Amino acid sequence: MSGGYMGRWLHVDLTTGAIRVHPLDERDAQRFIGGSGLAARLIGREVAAGPDPFGPENPLIFTTGPLAGTPAPTSNRFTAAARSPLTLLWGEGDCGGRWGSALKAAGFDAALISGQAAAPVYLHIENGEAELRDASDLWGVDTYELDLGAPTVCIGPAGERLVRYASIMHDGRAGRAVGRTGLGAVMGAKRLKAIVAKGSERPGVARPGVLREVVRAIIGDIVEAMQGYRANGTAGGVQNYERLGNLPLKNWRQGSWPEGAARITGSRMSETILVGHYACAGCPIGCGREVAIESGPHAGVRGGGPEYETAAALGSLCLIDDLEALAHMNEVCNRLGLDTISAGGVLAMAMEARERGIWPEGPAWGDGEAAVRLLEQIGRREGEMPTLLGEGVRRMAEAWGVLAREFAIHIKGLELPMHDPRVYVSQAIGYATSTRGACHLQAFCHFYERLGRAPALGIPEPLPREAAEGKGRMVAILQNLMALFDSLKLCKFLLLGSFQPEHLVEWANAVTGWDCDLAEWLRTGERICNLRRAINARLGASRADDILPMRLLVHRRGEGGAPDNLAPFGQMLADYYAARRWSEFGLPTPELLRELDLGEYADWVPA
Amino acid sequence: MSGGYMGRWLHVDLTTGAIRVHPLDERDAQRFIGGSGLAARLIGREVAAGPDPFGPENPLIFTTGPLAGTPAPTSNRFTAAARSPLTLLWGEGDCGGRWGSALKAAGFDAALISGQAAAPVYLHIENGEAELRDASDLWGVDTYELDLGAPTVCIGPAGERLVRYASIMHDGRAGRAVGRTGLGAVMGAKRLKAIVAKGSERPGVARPGVLREVVRAIIGDIVEAMQGYRANGTAGGVQNYERLGNLPLKNWRQGSWPEGAARITGSRMSETILVGHYACAGCPIGCGREVAIESGPHAGVRGGGPEYETAAALGSLCLIDDLEALAHMNEVCNRLGLDTISAGGVLAMAMEARERGIWPEGPAWGDGEAAVRLLEQIGRREGEMPTLLGEGVRRMAEAWGVLAREFAIHIKGLELPMHDPRVYVSQAIGYATSTRGACHLQAFCHFYERLGRAPALGIPEPLPREAAEGKGRMVAILQNLMALFDSLKLCKFLLLGSFQPEHLVEWANAVTGWDCDLAEWLRTGERICNLRRAINARLGASRADDILPMRLLVHRRGEGGAPDNLAPFGQMLADYYAARRWSEFGLPTPELLRELDLGEYADWVPA
Repeated sequence: MSGGYMGRWLHVDLTTGAIRVHPLDERDAQRFIGGSGLAARLIGREVAAGPDPFGPENPLIFTTGPLAGTPAPTSNRFTAAARSPLTLLWGEGDCGGRWGSALKAAGFDAALISGQAAAPVYLHIENGEAELRDASDLWGVDTYELDLGAPTVCIGPAGERLVRYASIMHDGRAGRAVGRTGLGAVMGAKRLKAIVAKGSERPGVARPGVLREVVRAIIGDIVEAMQGYRANGTAGGVQNYERLGNLPLKNWRQGSWPEGAARITGSRMSETILVGHYACAGCPIGCGREVAIESGPHAGVRGGGPEYETAAALGSLCLIDDLEALAHMNEVCNRLGLDTISAGGVLAMAMEARERGIWPEGPAWGDGEAAVRLLEQIGRREGEMPTLLGEGVRRMAEAWGVLAREFAIHIKGLELPMHDPRVYVSQAIGYATSTRGACHLQAFCHFYERLGRAPALGIPEPLPREAAEGKGRMVAILQNLMALFDSLKLCKFLLLGSFQPEHLVEWANAVTGWDCDLAEWLRTGERICNLRRAINARLGASRADDILPMRLLVHRRGEGGAPDNLAPFGQMLADYYAARRWSEFGLPTPELLRELDLGEYADWVPA
Repeated sequence: MSGGYMGRWLHVDLTTGAIRVHPLDERDAQRFIGGSGLAARLIGREVAAGPDPFGPENPLIFTTGPLAGTPAPTSNRFTAAARSPLTLLWGEGDCGGRWGSALKAAGFDAALISGQAAAPVYLHIENGEAELRDASDLWGVDTYELDLGAPTVCIGPAGERLVRYASIMHDGRAGRAVGRTGLGAVMGAKRLKAIVAKGSERPGVARPGVLREVVRAIIGDIVEAMQGYRANGTAGGVQNYERLGNLPLKNWRQGSWPEGAARITGSRMSETILVGHYACAGCPIGCGREVAIESGPHAGVRGGGPEYETAAALGSLCLIDDLEALAHMNEVCNRLGLDTISAGGVLAMAMEARERGIWPEGPAWGDGEAAVRLLEQIGRREGEMPTLLGEGVRRMAEAWGVLAREFAIHIKGLELPMHDPRVYVSQAIGYATSTRGACHLQAFCHFYERLGRAPALGIPEPLPREAAEGKGRMVAILQNLMALFDSLKLCKFLLLGSFQPEHLVEWANAVTGWDCDLAEWLRTGERICNLRRAINARLGASRADDILPMRLLVHRRGEGGAPDNLAPFGQMLADYYAARRWSEFGLPTPELLRELDLGEYADWVPA
């Protein structure tokens, strides 16, 4: 380990109350790093066995990365993972804030939670010790009100009540979230309200001088490149994305909405309700927003403001252009613990159901007040229809009849994030092949398709829109790279500036003391991608699940920045599988798994 | 009616034994003609109500066309239709031979069978009278042995035992079949063994002199153009299709098989086992084959020889290159009453299941002897696995686990016919949007994409392979035209020569006495297509069902005539829906239905 890794993980069994500390296996660390990769390594076998997502057999794990607590910027993110109650496949999400470094400071790279408590508990971790504490009085408390005095991850009422897209929240009113795949509901099913982490352990850095030097060499560029993000947050991109046709509108049907976009964009937020900025621990960028509303129907809102995904999912996707209502919706989601992306997908489907006469009492397009009320009901599971809406769009379609499939926009059960695959078409493949269902972050390819900028990956220039060429392969390479970000727990926003994959290698080698080149690191990323795919294969997923909703395959919006474009789906996907060297079923072969040093999983996939 | 239509249809209720004769409504005849359109008109409402395909509520109808019995060549085909036990959607099939004109001569344009008999019966129709007769002694008799002394449609043991792709057979050893969508099982569920038709009524022709003249003007060209079909049958195309990459191989995975193709092609059949030719009533082409095998393991085979679809489905798709075994397999299917296309799809899937270790005792690729035995067992439902195989590939996949979806090659539950949509890519849309599941005949577009030749339809030239442009629209127009063929009951092989849509107009106007131009006739075709789509909509089908199996979307075969090509599926499909003017759900709108004079169905589709 060469001092780079603390090298311990915590195992807490909620059924028995047993608490154990394990050394981190050195070979596991080298093969799977931390974050997403380490999570897949430590709980992959239990997840692949297909546990009831809400049962005691479903493990829930939190993992940090080796750079947590070091001077490497943006390195304090953490991962949560389990079998997803939404997709029934590999579920994971990650989050910034200060809990990742706090867990590390408390002495652990990871905390694995198994079993199920008989009554609500929370977990207190401090300086190498862990303790389960009664949380009966905390049950029902929303995430803004919960205060345990130290960095905390927790669930709100939505997670407690098993809403299938419940989030795990962090940092109170700052509203940081492990949003996707419903891991808050897994935590709720375990009756685990929160995990507090604090301590004073310092992370090991193998070559601290080198780390300081390589960080100093680029930190100025990062800050410089991200000034816009600091000024207007990620939601600063709303208007530009609207112009490009990349901003989803009206449940993915509409192509143009310039005035609405102008009303909810980040600069408008800066001019109106913004009261402060938020930065995760160790981040020189600070893209987070703090907003406050003093008067009017949404008076009292105060805390984290909508990020881009939230502004689009709860805003443009539902044609809601009232920024204060949007901030209120965001706060409701954060307080109750709901993934804002899935919540937006659910609201948009509900609005379309009203339009189509399936749910005449549902919210109308653009009705922010109704949306606020409905989100409250969903998060608290109040009423028959809000309870159904808490199941996500795939299950809503099952309840509403087969025609409702046409407007249940999901992949593998996960509602889509806010980048239209009819514009940067490689995202069609990113979405279709992500192991957690529709995810823009496991490939982050819209960025590279649009800008190029990665000569070391063979993507020096932007790729022509509409064309299939090169994009399937690009998605595979980028997934390998992003698996490294997700396992080192670095923030992908680094990439928006001059940060290159080579910098990641420098940082990671300086901390770990390893001497891997980019190709070796990418091979590690490939290993992690294949392990996650193998877990899903074990759960029955294969190529047949790598499909877009028909609306995104064939619906031309007829207006806006990309009025007629559709993704050349089959061609790109074929190229992707070829680049992955996967089988006719779109799965890793036993040979490939062995080649990637995953031989112990070779019997998980068809020979 | 102007004398063009006999104008009566028969309704037999098997439950009560009631037999009624109804006049054919003149407006129905003008709106829906005969065949497929009239069938949809007369039983569409009952089918759309979603009856158990094997229950008494599922109507089964046989329809002829207005040209039956007239001098118009190839005009004696007939349609059968019901709710399909295979797709659970609109099911139909058609057939040549001499039964269509016999039903017309017996005095009827259509025979609708409702209810369910308590014990096996057959229906005898003669000169305007109909009678149910006991068929207890005929139950179990195979279709080659059954002899009722006059033109007969009947089922074999497969239909009696509810194999979901059982065919309705005709003309004994000639082996003519209503093959697709399992209508033989519907007949079996009704305990209706056969329908005999005979009589001496002459069809009305409004302008007999005109009809004689327009037929004489082209009959020579037809005979001339089709000499190759007469010489080598439809299977004469096997080798050429193999060279083009259009011949499906090894369950759609392989790209090249020249030696195998040479062994099963029509010319090889001509040189070896061919003993005669067969022509349907009124056909100057005579593409049918009579074969006989005198010695060896397949001695005793005697009757209709494999057509192209059969040679490919039972042959190349399974890598079976033994022509005598193939002829034997064809005879087993015909005797027992199994659709050879679906049977081939099932066998290929079974062979792949053996390869993948799912069914180690299954037949091996290329093993014709095992295939003969297995088809016998499937047709008689002997044994657990053959019984499952009688359910079709979609249900086999459900039984074999989710990974089996990857090699269950079907659309809407119907196994694919033998034209690869990775070569003539418009067929991807023809397959995906056919109302009976994967069907090459409802669009017949591979022919036009390859050859053009239809200036009146805006398709004067071949369309470039691989490109999407123009193909979606072409499929919509061709479906409208083919709906006319299927409703007038003309043979589409007319189109392989110099026969043009304008000739169809001349023939149809001469018989009916109408004066519709091509645009009006095509509008009638469009009406029929939309009615069938509306029936399926009522049964829950929509755009989400218009999808290819993933293997055909993304699997590049890497060899042969089209090694790398894949269909630009989304683009063509979007163009198709636009040409159809269908809704965001891919369904007719109420407005469109009203515009097409289908106002009484407007409440079947979402507004």
